[in-house]
Amino acid sequence: MTPAASAALAELTQHFDTTTLVRDPWRLAPLEIDHRERYRGRAAAALFPRSTAQVSAALEICHRHAMPVVPQGGNTSYCGAATPDASGDQLLLCLARMNRIRELRPIDDIMVAEAGCLLAELQQAATAADRLFPLQLGSAGSCQLGGNLSTNAGGTNVLRYGMARDLVLGLEVVLADGRVLETLGSLRKDNTGYDIKSLFLGAEGTLGVITAASLRLFPQPRSVATAFVALGSVQQAIELLAELRSAGGEELTSFELMPRAALQLLNRHLPDRQPPLPLDAPWFLLCELATARRGADTHHTLEDLLSAASERGLLGNAVIAQNERERQALWQLRESIPEAQRRAGPSLKHDVSVPVAVLPEFVTRGTALVEQTVSEGQLIAYGHAGDGNLHFNVSLRDGADAAAFSAREQTLRRAVHDLVHEFGGSFSAEHGIGQSKVEELERYAPALELELMRRIKLALDPQGIMNPGKVLKR
Amino acid sequence: MTPAASAALAELTQHFDTTTLVRDPWRLAPLEIDHRERYRGRAAAALFPRSTAQVSAALEICHRHAMPVVPQGGNTSYCGAATPDASGDQLLLCLARMNRIRELRPIDDIMVAEAGCLLAELQQAATAADRLFPLQLGSAGSCQLGGNLSTNAGGTNVLRYGMARDLVLGLEVVLADGRVLETLGSLRKDNTGYDIKSLFLGAEGTLGVITAASLRLFPQPRSVATAFVALGSVQQAIELLAELRSAGGEELTSFELMPRAALQLLNRHLPDRQPPLPLDAPWFLLCELATARRGADTHHTLEDLLSAASERGLLGNAVIAQNERERQALWQLRESIPEAQRRAGPSLKHDVSVPVAVLPEFVTRGTALVEQTVSEGQLIAYGHAGDGNLHFNVSLRDGADAAAFSAREQTLRRAVHDLVHEFGGSFSAEHGIGQSKVEELERYAPALELELMRRIKLALDPQGIMNPGKVLKR
Repeated sequence: MTPAASAALAELTQHFDTTTLVRDPWRLAPLEIDHRERYRGRAAAALFPRSTAQVSAALEICHRHAMPVVPQGGNTSYCGAATPDASGDQLLLCLARMNRIRELRPIDDIMVAEAGCLLAELQQAATAADRLFPLQLGSAGSCQLGGNLSTNAGGTNVLRYGMARDLVLGLEVVLADGRVLETLGSLRKDNTGYDIKSLFLGAEGTLGVITAASLRLFPQPRSVATAFVALGSVQQAIELLAELRSAGGEELTSFELMPRAALQLLNRHLPDRQPPLPLDAPWFLLCELATARRGADTHHTLEDLLSAASERGLLGNAVIAQNERERQALWQLRESIPEAQRRAGPSLKHDVSVPVAVLPEFVTRGTALVEQTVSEGQLIAYGHAGDGNLHFNVSLRDGADAAAFSAREQTLRRAVHDLVHEFGGSFSAEHGIGQSKVEELERYAPALELELMRRIKLALDPQGIMNPGKVLKR
Repeated sequence: MTPAASAALAELTQHFDTTTLVRDPWRLAPLEIDHRERYRGRAAAALFPRSTAQVSAALEICHRHAMPVVPQGGNTSYCGAATPDASGDQLLLCLARMNRIRELRPIDDIMVAEAGCLLAELQQAATAADRLFPLQLGSAGSCQLGGNLSTNAGGTNVLRYGMARDLVLGLEVVLADGRVLETLGSLRKDNTGYDIKSLFLGAEGTLGVITAASLRLFPQPRSVATAFVALGSVQQAIELLAELRSAGGEELTSFELMPRAALQLLNRHLPDRQPPLPLDAPWFLLCELATARRGADTHHTLEDLLSAASERGLLGNAVIAQNERERQALWQLRESIPEAQRRAGPSLKHDVSVPVAVLPEFVTRGTALVEQTVSEGQLIAYGHAGDGNLHFNVSLRDGADAAAFSAREQTLRRAVHDLVHEFGGSFSAEHGIGQSKVEELERYAPALELELMRRIKLALDPQGIMNPGKVLKR
């Protein structure tokens, strides 16, 4: 450990008790590895503050000693954003104990919550007040608000409600030097100066630590209808999307595309989760309409829209969930794909987006590219097609050579991201940069944009103690 | 003129012809005064670039000579944001000739437009493609996109579609030193680094010049219903709002409150614009439902909602527009209030917002405050109540002493803004800071937030040439 880190740690030890400042290596270990087990590090210690004042005190100490700080929420990053480096000099700042909902005001459609709240808890609190907090991720039961906001999380409701950034009215942030920036207002409209808060949303803890946020709530949908639809091609999916958007108005909330291969993985590895249609089409779609409008009958609307689309030849078989149990079963299919992929063995993952209109061509060219580049792999490209976002993943084929497969990771990644770039797309649609995509950002972002990011980093964290090496190169 | 400004001007004169660089004082004069005629300045010249390259070349020259630059769109600022100072050293940068729609892709729901496009032109182009660009301001026929974005404009559709910032997917910005930051993507999801673009949205030209933007489009509403409703109190309005929001779902797009006094001003000064109800209630509401959903009957929905609310005693008389002509007439009432106020003589204006739940108490206390502070005035508080935003204006009473009235401007402003602050509100909900509210920002913004704004200004415009003295003190 560097002398600076030792000095900081000594001061932190004086300031916090051992239930708050954890140094036991057995307790640190699970925090030092990411959930996909791709990144490992060594932390000097982990701090579990209970209040903003404690976060502030800790950062003031770290800042004085230039000790680096790695904020961690539910540790569900796909990019190693919350994993410390190998130096053993970094403090893990775990927000889990800051998990109070400070305020929930239905009449203002607002909730003020701390960073350590589980996403699922926030969803439940909103529901209990007859409101909706629309952020929805597969990891809702383990991811935390602070991580959701710091990575500008996406998920399955973006089509209608936007990304995490769009759900935030104000923030409480502890800056690198320990000072607290408090803008936890509940105003819909406030044009008084620069939009500072947006900088922290998506900065992955490199500009400061989000400790609380005021969040927008929405009316709780009264009527929800969910369909599972067989499709002949991605082109059909895009035409159906246009139709649902224009004829369904604002009620279309989810539009999730899955290839047959993904459902076949489910068949094999999670046989209790079975699709309600025969797998005789190359693509399947989960789509959902929802509205709070009194008297709305989204089931009827969805039935009408799908049968009109069917007459125009835009889809194959389709089923609409007849009750909440069936609806949950459909969503379980979609949300089990990552688990099925995990059970199927190693996979090479890419989280990409392109403009919706070019999705069909992108999938065609991407499929050919995977076939050329990784003969050991099988493309499983699924996800939020309504937003142009696909998890463009490649799984090891049965019996193929795992070592050869893994050895192609860098080549494939470069080829996929170059293709995405050619289509005007993004190499990180919703997962962020973390440590895994720092090189990609250097490669694809305009030089001037990178320069501005560095200037802003320097303006807000001049010592560079906040999650160093994440997002931007050291 | 300073030697630096002279040198810059000489170089600009060499670079641009006289149709592009205007120095004729008679042509400069209308650009040197704001539309409310409250701010006057003297510009060294006005540049009317036709391309991003010309903006870039001009800023490179100005930056080298440290000549200040004041961007100007439709010159409709309420805060003097686009008016030069009195020095005669500043270059006015008028974006009016950059007025091309570069791209409109209905399938991606996106439009790429230049800063000088009139808002009304953008609305029409979207409509022609069966889409909606939802930003709607009274000044749509004269304000320009660049100004709309630089001030994060609000308007009458914020309730459903958000502020200008929420409608932007990407920007083209010329930085203070002339370099061009181009992020004109059309992606819904792109988590690759800090949200730089949000800084320019609402920065009022103090961090760079927005030259183009990619904008979100929405399905064109197929069914629109608009009602004009008499209300007994602001409390009733808030209860009705909650009802319409929860039972109307996502279809509620506008909720505009007007006091009887505002409609009486119309009666007197614009007698061809008459409300369809007797003025026997203290408050009136214009509300609108709209949806693109096929088969929707918003007229029927609104009728049901209003009659249910009426049975619960939440409203007095109400009329629903029976056709587009009647609907336009209702909107004309609402949008004519500023003009009626202007004809009624001088007025003291405040653009405030508070959390919706406390609007009734705020209006009660604000009314008492106006009565105490300005006996010569009459409160005309109207506006976007659905967002908690009121234009809290005071007009001179008939026959009252105009000089005494005007002399109370500063006292009233301080009292109103202190009251707003006490309610957790904003002293500038949608009009921005410009030059008129720089002192207010210093007074009400947390010191740390101001410090961060200054650090960001320094990081992006180290020479301080971009619209100096606006938003932040020099």
